[in-house]
Amino acid sequence: MKKAVILLSGGLDSATVLAIARDQGYECYALSLAYGQRHSVELEAADRVAKGLGVVAHKVIQLSLDAFGGSALTDNAIAVPEEQGEGIPVTYVPARNTIFLSLALGWAEVLGARDLFLGVNAVDYSGYPDCRPEFIEAFEALANLATKAGVEGERFTIHAPLINLTKAEIIQQGQRLGVDYGLTISCYQATVDGIACGVCDSCRLRAEGFRVAGVTDPTHYLKRK
Amino acid sequence: MKKAVILLSGGLDSATVLAIARDQGYECYALSLAYGQRHSVELEAADRVAKGLGVVAHKVIQLSLDAFGGSALTDNAIAVPEEQGEGIPVTYVPARNTIFLSLALGWAEVLGARDLFLGVNAVDYSGYPDCRPEFIEAFEALANLATKAGVEGERFTIHAPLINLTKAEIIQQGQRLGVDYGLTISCYQATVDGIACGVCDSCRLRAEGFRVAGVTDPTHYLKRK
Repeated sequence: MKKAVILLSGGLDSATVLAIARDQGYECYALSLAYGQRHSVELEAADRVAKGLGVVAHKVIQLSLDAFGGSALTDNAIAVPEEQGEGIPVTYVPARNTIFLSLALGWAEVLGARDLFLGVNAVDYSGYPDCRPEFIEAFEALANLATKAGVEGERFTIHAPLINLTKAEIIQQGQRLGVDYGLTISCYQATVDGIACGVCDSCRLRAEGFRVAGVTDPTHYLKRK
Repeated sequence: MKKAVILLSGGLDSATVLAIARDQGYECYALSLAYGQRHSVELEAADRVAKGLGVVAHKVIQLSLDAFGGSALTDNAIAVPEEQGEGIPVTYVPARNTIFLSLALGWAEVLGARDLFLGVNAVDYSGYPDCRPEFIEAFEALANLATKAGVEGERFTIHAPLINLTKAEIIQQGQRLGVDYGLTISCYQATVDGIACGVCDSCRLRAEGFRVAGVTDPTHYLKRK
């Protein structure tokens, strides 16, 4: 049975990715990051999702990215926007997916896993540069140069199975695979487990995804636009 | 004055790189990682070197890589070799330079720095895959795809000024720039500040570098081969 490392945030996308990897027959190792995020309650959701989908192991790595700040998600002095804006929003965390994939790569090499999964999406997303296909391709090329396994002729593959799906398509795929979205949290400013603000970018994309998919949204939103 | 982020381990190479960046006129921001390394006393050396070379800021980021293990440097159950072996040694930390550069990239983007410096070397080194020029080039390409700054047309440059130098040449260059190597620690298994084992790969390369350079080695070695 092939091993895979799955980046698991506790949100809707990464829960779906974990279900996809499991459905493809991988032995799943879930990796979450306690990176000083404002919405660290997502780690409780990650734990529920990991247990619910039967991973072999779930590791939470401590990483003090709030020491850098520079993002609404890692610096409490920068507010999470409640209106849709232009361009890359302040919720962008500099180099986050590069950092998270690097850590997944490190664990994968230790485990003997050659497949990494993450839930980036370039359709219904916040416009982050590290969610685009060209970023994923560049990281895969790097992974095969950076590692002992790569030098020895093994190949790492970065799987981003949601990259070309709409949020509604992601939800429909997750439903088919039995994902319980009631376990997940997407909100950028959730501070109480199970309560979403309803107005941040992530809540808006989530709510709209359920609506378009024709699936009942299990989320408790504080407000709705 | 242009800003640069310099990865600073507390060893000989990164101290030299910091002196080079400063000599090139950069305003220097030093980044060290408390990654669960066996030789965490190197962080005391990093602090001394950062102060000695007058950085603007020195950040130490906490990162629990010992949760992965898989290397003699992050898992105390794997011994540091005291003889030179074949191939990539067990002191290789999976994906370490990818992880460290990713973090340096994140901080650089927050600071508005576009230049990253690190002390990798492909001549007198331990054979690590992430010390080779092709790795550095691939990371630079990734950095410019991964970031908001890159998307907006700015360019990140990864500087590896030691990559083609011998250890002796590195030491000679550091001497010219006034680096006090007595502040640095290279040993892979140093547990007491200022005391090096003298027999690990890193100690052997360091001692031989000073000998070939014709420079007095300020290191206190416990043993000598």
